[in-house]
Amino acid sequence: MNKEEILELINEGSLDISKIKMLVSDMNTVDIAEIFEELGTEKIIQLFRILPKHIASDVFSYVGSDHQQTIIEALTDTEVSEIVNKLFVDDAVDFIEEMPANVVKRVLKNVRPEKRKLINQILQYPENSAGSIMTTEYVDLRENAKVREAFDTIRSTGVNKETIYNCYVISDDRLLVGAISAKIMMLARPQDRIGDLMDTNLVFTYTTDDQEAVADQFQKYNLLAMPVVDKEERLVGIITVDDIVDVIVEENTEDIHKMAALVPTDEEYLKTSVFRHSKNRFVWMLILMLSATITGFIISSFEEGLTALPVLMAFVPMLMNTGGIAGSQASTLIIRGMAVGEIGLSDVLVVIWKELRVAVLCGLGLGIVNFIRVLITNSQNWKLCLTISMSLFFTIMMAKTVGGILPIFAKRLKIDPAIMSAPLLTTICDAVSLIIYFSFAKLILGL
Amino acid sequence: MNKEEILELINEGSLDISKIKMLVSDMNTVDIAEIFEELGTEKIIQLFRILPKHIASDVFSYVGSDHQQTIIEALTDTEVSEIVNKLFVDDAVDFIEEMPANVVKRVLKNVRPEKRKLINQILQYPENSAGSIMTTEYVDLRENAKVREAFDTIRSTGVNKETIYNCYVISDDRLLVGAISAKIMMLARPQDRIGDLMDTNLVFTYTTDDQEAVADQFQKYNLLAMPVVDKEERLVGIITVDDIVDVIVEENTEDIHKMAALVPTDEEYLKTSVFRHSKNRFVWMLILMLSATITGFIISSFEEGLTALPVLMAFVPMLMNTGGIAGSQASTLIIRGMAVGEIGLSDVLVVIWKELRVAVLCGLGLGIVNFIRVLITNSQNWKLCLTISMSLFFTIMMAKTVGGILPIFAKRLKIDPAIMSAPLLTTICDAVSLIIYFSFAKLILGL
Repeated sequence: MNKEEILELINEGSLDISKIKMLVSDMNTVDIAEIFEELGTEKIIQLFRILPKHIASDVFSYVGSDHQQTIIEALTDTEVSEIVNKLFVDDAVDFIEEMPANVVKRVLKNVRPEKRKLINQILQYPENSAGSIMTTEYVDLRENAKVREAFDTIRSTGVNKETIYNCYVISDDRLLVGAISAKIMMLARPQDRIGDLMDTNLVFTYTTDDQEAVADQFQKYNLLAMPVVDKEERLVGIITVDDIVDVIVEENTEDIHKMAALVPTDEEYLKTSVFRHSKNRFVWMLILMLSATITGFIISSFEEGLTALPVLMAFVPMLMNTGGIAGSQASTLIIRGMAVGEIGLSDVLVVIWKELRVAVLCGLGLGIVNFIRVLITNSQNWKLCLTISMSLFFTIMMAKTVGGILPIFAKRLKIDPAIMSAPLLTTICDAVSLIIYFSFAKLILGL
Repeated sequence: MNKEEILELINEGSLDISKIKMLVSDMNTVDIAEIFEELGTEKIIQLFRILPKHIASDVFSYVGSDHQQTIIEALTDTEVSEIVNKLFVDDAVDFIEEMPANVVKRVLKNVRPEKRKLINQILQYPENSAGSIMTTEYVDLRENAKVREAFDTIRSTGVNKETIYNCYVISDDRLLVGAISAKIMMLARPQDRIGDLMDTNLVFTYTTDDQEAVADQFQKYNLLAMPVVDKEERLVGIITVDDIVDVIVEENTEDIHKMAALVPTDEEYLKTSVFRHSKNRFVWMLILMLSATITGFIISSFEEGLTALPVLMAFVPMLMNTGGIAGSQASTLIIRGMAVGEIGLSDVLVVIWKELRVAVLCGLGLGIVNFIRVLITNSQNWKLCLTISMSLFFTIMMAKTVGGILPIFAKRLKIDPAIMSAPLLTTICDAVSLIIYFSFAKLILGL
C-alpha cells in the first residue's frame, strides 16, 4: 500500500519529496487525507506542503478538523487563500464551522469576496436545515438555450461545479423552472432547446426545510441532487447525494442515541470531553432514577405480603426485565417503522391487534417455561408457580401493548417517539408489572 | 395534487382515460406507483393498463411486491415480457425475489434469454453480497477508444444504462483496468484517448463482498457508482448510490433491532405475520428470563437480611434500572461508534479511562440526589441512605465500565457487538449491582 510506504518515508525523516509526490499522485485524495491522522504537527505541515497544488484543497477537505486547524495555522495568508478559494462552498462551511473564532476570521479575510458572501450566507442557515448543507456550485441554464450552448457552458464552468450531471433551468429573475440531466442532453441533438427537454415536475426543497425530510425525498425518488430555493422560489443552491448519505447516518446515530436515553450529539465519542459525556447522560439517568420512586412505593405497600413469603421477591427482577424487554422490542419496531415510513399514525389499531396476538404467543410460551422452571427450583409449590406465570403472561400483554402504542401517541403529540419511549415505557412497565404481580399474589396465594 | 385527482377519477368509476393519461404524464413515476397502494385489485389492473408504455415498467419497479404480483398475474404473457424486459436487471431481481415460484417461472419464461441469464446469475449470489445488489447495465469502454467514440457508444446504448456518468474501461478479456466519468470526458477534447484520461486508482468490490462494506466505501469516497468484479477481476456489474442508500438504512434498522434484543428482519412490521413476529422476539425474551434466575438466587441468598429490613427491597428496582441505563448508554455509544468507524479495537483503554471518569461524575451526582431523596422519604435513616447511595455509585462505575468494554471484546471475538450486548450486559449489571447492594447492606447496616 502506498499509504504505509509514505508513512514509513515520513517517519524515517528522509523527506524524499519526489518519491512521495509519485506515490501520492496515484492515490485517492480520501486515502491521502487518512495519512494525516497518523502524523504529529510538524510532519503534518511538511507533508501538506509537498502535496501537488491541484489536489491540496481536495485533500484538505477530507482531513479531520483538528488537523485542518494545524495546517491553516501553519500556512501563510497566500497559501490559506489558495486552499480555501478552491474548496467547494459546502466543504468550506463544514471546515469553518469547526474552527475557533480567530481562525475563522483569518480564513474569511483570505477568501475571495464573492465566495466570502456565499459562505457567510450558508453559515446563517439554522443547523440541520437544507440551507446549511447545500452548496452553491451548480450549473444553471436558460430555457431558450440550445443543448449545444448548454454543453459550452458546462465545458467552460463545469470544472468548478459540485456536479454537472444535474443542471437547473432558471428564469430571468432566477426562479427555478425546470431540471435537466446531462444524460438527457447527451442523448439529445445539439440544436434541441433546453426548455423543450427539461423536466418541470421537480422535487425541490426550501432552505429552511429539515435535512431529515430532504434525505427522505432523496431516498424516495432515488435522487443524485436536489435544488434548494429561497422563500421566493429562487434557486440558491443544490444538495448532492454524498452529503445526504452523511445526513442519513447522522440521523440514524441520533435516533439510536435517543433510544438509549442519551442526549444525542454529533461529536465523536473519543473527541467528546468527560464533562460533556456526563452531561449528555446525566439527565435521563436522573429521570429514571427518580421515577423508580414509584416502584419503590409499590413494593413498600406490599411489604407485609413480601415478609410473609420472602421468596416472592426473588422473581421481581425476572418479571421486570422480561416485561422491559417485551416493551422495548415492540416500541423499537414501531419507532423504526415510523422513521422509515412503514408505519403511520393511522395504523394504531392494527399495531395493537398485532401486538396483542404476539403477546399471547410469547406470553404463553414463556409462561409455560417459567412454570416448569419455578416448579423445579421451588420445591413444587404450584400455587407460587401459577402466580408467577400468570403475572408474567399479563406483564407481557401489557408491555407489548404499551410499547406498541406509546411511540404512535408520542408522534401524534408531536413529541419525538425515540426520546420519550425509553424512560416513560420503563416506568410504566415496571410499575404495572409489580401491580399485576402483587395482585395475583393476593388472589392466588391469599397474602 | 395530481395524485388525489387521479384517485378521485378512478374511485368515481368514470375511467376518463385521456384525463388520467394527461395527469400521469406530469408526475414522477415514484408518485404514480404510490397511487397503486390505495387501490383494490381490479382498479390496480385498470390503472396499470392505462399507463403510457414508456413509463409502465418504471412505475412497476416502484410498486409494492404484493401489487406487483397482482399486476403480473393479470397481464398476458406478451405484456409481462414487455414490462420485465424493460426493467433494469437489479430491479427485476428485487421483484423476482419476492414472488412465489409459479410467478417466477412465468416471468423468467417471458424474458429475453440474455436477460434471463443475467437475472439467474444475480439471483445466485448470497443475500447481502455485492453481487446480489449490483446491476449489469453499465457502460464499458476500451482504452484505445477516443472520447468522440465513447460518446457515440453512450448515445447509442446509454438510454438503457443505469448510469452513464461513471464508465468503466476493460481489457480484451474483460478485466477492469480503469474508470472514467462523463465529466472528465465532457471537459476533454473529442480526439483524446480514453486510456490517457482514465483513473486507474480504482475503488472496486468483489461479487462476494458484504454489502455493508461496500456501503462504507461509498461513504468514505463519496462515490456515485462502484464497479463489481468476479474472482478473476473481470467486470461483471456496477452498484449505484441509490441502492447503497437503501443498504445503509437497512443495515441501520438491523443494528437497531439487534440492540433491542430482536432477531433482525427486513420484512416490514405490518407485513410480518404474528407467528414470525413472535419467533423474532421469543428467543431473546427466553434467554433474558432464564438468565434472571441468577438475580433470583442472589436475592434468595440474602433473604434473612431482607426480612430483617424489608425496606431494602424497595430500592432494588431503582438500583437495577439506573445501573441498566448507565450500562446501555455506554454500550450504545461504543457499538454505534464502532459501526461508523470512530472507535477501533485498539481504543479499549481510552474507552475504559473515559467511562470511569464519566461514571465518577454521574455516580457522584446521582448518589447525592439519591441520598437526599431517601433521607426525606425514609425518616432520616442516614445509614440506609449511605448504603443505597454507595451502592448506586459503585453500580454506575461497574455498569459504565462493563458497558464500554463488552462491545469491544465482542468485536474482538468476532461476535456482533449489537447482538451480544443487550442480554449479557443486562445479566451482568443486574447480578453485580445486587451483590454490591447486599455487600454494602451487610457492611454498613450489619445485616
